[in-house]
Amino acid sequence: MRVSDLSRSSGVPVATIKYYLREGLLPRGETTSPNQARYDDTHLRRLRLIRALVEVGGLPIANVREVLSAVDDPAVSLHAMLGRTVYAITGDVGASGSLDEAEADLEQAMTHVDWQVEHGAPALAGARSVLARMRELGLAPGDTTLRAWAEAADRAAEGDMAAIGRTTGREEAAETALIGTVLGDALLAALRRIAQESRSAQLYRDGS
Amino acid sequence: MRVSDLSRSSGVPVATIKYYLREGLLPRGETTSPNQARYDDTHLRRLRLIRALVEVGGLPIANVREVLSAVDDPAVSLHAMLGRTVYAITGDVGASGSLDEAEADLEQAMTHVDWQVEHGAPALAGARSVLARMRELGLAPGDTTLRAWAEAADRAAEGDMAAIGRTTGREEAAETALIGTVLGDALLAALRRIAQESRSAQLYRDGS
Repeated sequence: MRVSDLSRSSGVPVATIKYYLREGLLPRGETTSPNQARYDDTHLRRLRLIRALVEVGGLPIANVREVLSAVDDPAVSLHAMLGRTVYAITGDVGASGSLDEAEADLEQAMTHVDWQVEHGAPALAGARSVLARMRELGLAPGDTTLRAWAEAADRAAEGDMAAIGRTTGREEAAETALIGTVLGDALLAALRRIAQESRSAQLYRDGS
Repeated sequence: MRVSDLSRSSGVPVATIKYYLREGLLPRGETTSPNQARYDDTHLRRLRLIRALVEVGGLPIANVREVLSAVDDPAVSLHAMLGRTVYAITGDVGASGSLDEAEADLEQAMTHVDWQVEHGAPALAGARSVLARMRELGLAPGDTTLRAWAEAADRAAEGDMAAIGRTTGREEAAETALIGTVLGDALLAALRRIAQESRSAQLYRDGS
């Protein structure tokens, strides 16, 4: 297909496609004449991934390039590639509370659901920060709540892995991990609100 | 304590505290002289809550005010108050995809976990928007993933209700719901990353 067809199929403007080509994010098409090139489904697929990284993940171009290089490097294992994709969009709440007590909370949760991750994993720092912030506000979750949340996160991740397992190829796996993480967080938050409302109505609708 | 002590204890600059006082978010202290007032632990606690809502929740002042008025109004039932406080921080991804198919996805998830909520509940619109956005990107969650996420949300909400159940009094219940929702979303997201990493390592560390 020509660049105009690629634009129509992907919903990405021609000018943006040309920018991605110049930046080397999208491979050049097969040259068919001095100022025309032919593109195929691999370009469409790559363009979808770039769009997801930029629009859904909110990533700057430099970070998009980093993720794509992990996708394209066969020496990077699928596990490492998924990790880099997800970590590219992971922020930090920057807590100033007690990290030691937060660490103890986190250890307890992780033991409960039997998670094994590397010691320096950025998600550990993220969870620790939030827990420290909660403690700082005097509202650290109790044991029952923390265990429920850990089980919830574990069940959600089981669903995430089911989605990854259905994909064919590294590129689709990266796209699924990214969208499932960013939009999945939003969806889980919305579903949690619905579940809260359903449970709160049963418990507290008539009382005050 | 004086405003300078309140600033030191809370980590909020004096100018910001004065701004919150002017905006009516923080109750005035007891006047001890024409240009001095005394503050106590209730001010410190409220200030920490405002700070969390602004810095962690990313709420504009108008929404902070809305949340605080729901916390402080005893005429609002506990269920309604929890709903209002939680909805203040619920955004919308503004999807343009098919809402009909998204609605079918949502119905399926809700039937699976047996949630009963009012028809016009805002969280339903939020979940529908995210599902439509996923479909638009060609990555709607499959049945297995959707059911796992619904169960995860339900388990998380069970934990939320356990936290609410431990509180004494409306103010503490509202604070717990707020912090549990704002920071709870961040914590669940971080825990989900840890769980993803743990499961991904088991499945994909050695393969590609």
